[in-house]
Amino acid sequence: MNNNDNTYFDAYADLEVHERMLKDVQRNEAYRKAIESNREYFRNKTVLDVGAGTGILSILCAKAGASKVYAVEACKIAAIAKAEVRENNVEDIVTVIEERIEEVELPTKVDIIISEWMGFYLLHEGMLDSVIFARNKFLKDDGVLFPDACKLFVAPCSLPSFYSHWNNVSGLSMKTFASSLREMYRSKPKISVLPADCLLSEGVCVHKFELKFVTTEDLNDISCELFTTSTKDGSYEGICLWFTTSFPSMDESYYEELILSTSPTAPKTHWKQTLLIMAESIEVYKQCPIFGTLSLRRSKANSRFYDIEFEVLDPDKVDHPIPCDCDNSRCKIIKALSEQYDERDEEMNDVD
Amino acid sequence: MNNNDNTYFDAYADLEVHERMLKDVQRNEAYRKAIESNREYFRNKTVLDVGAGTGILSILCAKAGASKVYAVEACKIAAIAKAEVRENNVEDIVTVIEERIEEVELPTKVDIIISEWMGFYLLHEGMLDSVIFARNKFLKDDGVLFPDACKLFVAPCSLPSFYSHWNNVSGLSMKTFASSLREMYRSKPKISVLPADCLLSEGVCVHKFELKFVTTEDLNDISCELFTTSTKDGSYEGICLWFTTSFPSMDESYYEELILSTSPTAPKTHWKQTLLIMAESIEVYKQCPIFGTLSLRRSKANSRFYDIEFEVLDPDKVDHPIPCDCDNSRCKIIKALSEQYDERDEEMNDVD
Repeated sequence: MNNNDNTYFDAYADLEVHERMLKDVQRNEAYRKAIESNREYFRNKTVLDVGAGTGILSILCAKAGASKVYAVEACKIAAIAKAEVRENNVEDIVTVIEERIEEVELPTKVDIIISEWMGFYLLHEGMLDSVIFARNKFLKDDGVLFPDACKLFVAPCSLPSFYSHWNNVSGLSMKTFASSLREMYRSKPKISVLPADCLLSEGVCVHKFELKFVTTEDLNDISCELFTTSTKDGSYEGICLWFTTSFPSMDESYYEELILSTSPTAPKTHWKQTLLIMAESIEVYKQCPIFGTLSLRRSKANSRFYDIEFEVLDPDKVDHPIPCDCDNSRCKIIKALSEQYDERDEEMNDVD
Repeated sequence: MNNNDNTYFDAYADLEVHERMLKDVQRNEAYRKAIESNREYFRNKTVLDVGAGTGILSILCAKAGASKVYAVEACKIAAIAKAEVRENNVEDIVTVIEERIEEVELPTKVDIIISEWMGFYLLHEGMLDSVIFARNKFLKDDGVLFPDACKLFVAPCSLPSFYSHWNNVSGLSMKTFASSLREMYRSKPKISVLPADCLLSEGVCVHKFELKFVTTEDLNDISCELFTTSTKDGSYEGICLWFTTSFPSMDESYYEELILSTSPTAPKTHWKQTLLIMAESIEVYKQCPIFGTLSLRRSKANSRFYDIEFEVLDPDKVDHPIPCDCDNSRCKIIKALSEQYDERDEEMNDVD
């Protein structure tokens, strides 16, 4: 192997990334299901696949009945996509274009844009910018995006692998090491699988957008608030981020929601979860309010990455939401009153 | 975080490596057991820990009764080792020396050298050279090494994740991708966990050495032969490499073998297994002879790495070992004769 042949290495690096993605059954199956359950809609449509990679989505679209698929892929993996298109006998339908989407010219606008553009914590790698570019330039006014909506979720969590695990390592105490680890991860989130029982509350959807309308400017700076209450006693040691993407269901006979979830409670994906690790643990109890602000800002050093910050807010110093599930007496009274009101409302409706 | 602060980054890179190693329970526990079951032997001994990392082995030695432990660590992680030594209250016994072992001076020779120097496929990273240097310079003539012996194992295997997996990826055929993947891994082995049921035979020990006697020259070029027979029908798609290291048992009352195994049949370690992936699959049947030659040569580009080559030998063109378990009629006759001879030998012994 020639060490100077950088293109060779580039192609290899690509292969390993695609190996990981293609082995993600949840990812593949979510797209396959989204495409196949919209078979009627795909029939005779023109599709653009942005960042086609090995071509898997393009081939699925062709097999679902699309009349034309443009598979645009800027990296050398496009050569594999071309071969896979032939291997799956859809070379009459799928055209692989090895070019950056920003430089592509297509003969027509398209009915459907499909793309698997999601990075860690949804936005890492900034590939959504390319999808937005493609939408603005190539999608018909009544065109449809697959996926068409995204949600970002946040939940407080315990992180034993950064805390209690280090109290006993083959009989030794390694708290200094643990504290150094946490210090390290203060400057970069940890991409790791969080066991679902480490969640201290259900996930709170702190941000959502529709692919049809989102702009690149919308993605520069996302700030959101977390108001939740702990569902159990535990150690609050960090914040877990994940996302869901959902697909349109154009076939009226198909009612099941088409969602790809990267939640700790869903089957594992290669996106795992994104963990923000706190330097110090906070003991919480059931119904304890947990408030904070989260911001994701495009990194100045590399606009494909984000600087993520989470600030813990002191529940004694901020207004609680209404209603609030926490055990603060004011919140309990408001909640009780609002429940009474809801009940009365229901009774009134029953009378109607 | 200051992006220009390379030392900072270096230290961080270290931390992630040590996080992975310290979370390897099999590794930690093998050393802990080796040390604790030799408590009597460690009492009042002087120990040198080569490449002490976070100091875990040094601390275990101190707790087992060593009177003095020199923890030599060249990387910045030595700062953590110093703190961990204090955290575990053994600062009177353990001295952390942040230096390359090749530059260290010690006031005395030592009774014991302990080191966790093993890399992927045992030899990757070439840290054993430093242990050999330390042994030659610092170990008393009657001194002991932990571990004291190593074995390298090889077995033919099926590799579905590089072959059959790609016949159906969400309904698509992705054989071109699979073949590109295999092509990539021809130039570098894959470090991955092999499910034990992918083994086509038991592991064959193709090389072993004792730490007390091995030289750096011995490690320049290791060539060995594999003669085995398949224990079942299957697809022969690659070669799996792993190692075991064993520890001396100086306490006569302790009979259990002290072994750290990285076999596919042992609990998972961070070393996983090393897989050499063949470009084409070979169908084998039960009792089919599988022969080959394996060589590990220090890489000219970086002497810490090895170039690994496996050559499949055609069983029709080489002499079979005697006895050989394969289904070749000559081998079956030789085996039957040798078994008869053994039985008669036993009967004769019974008469005695």
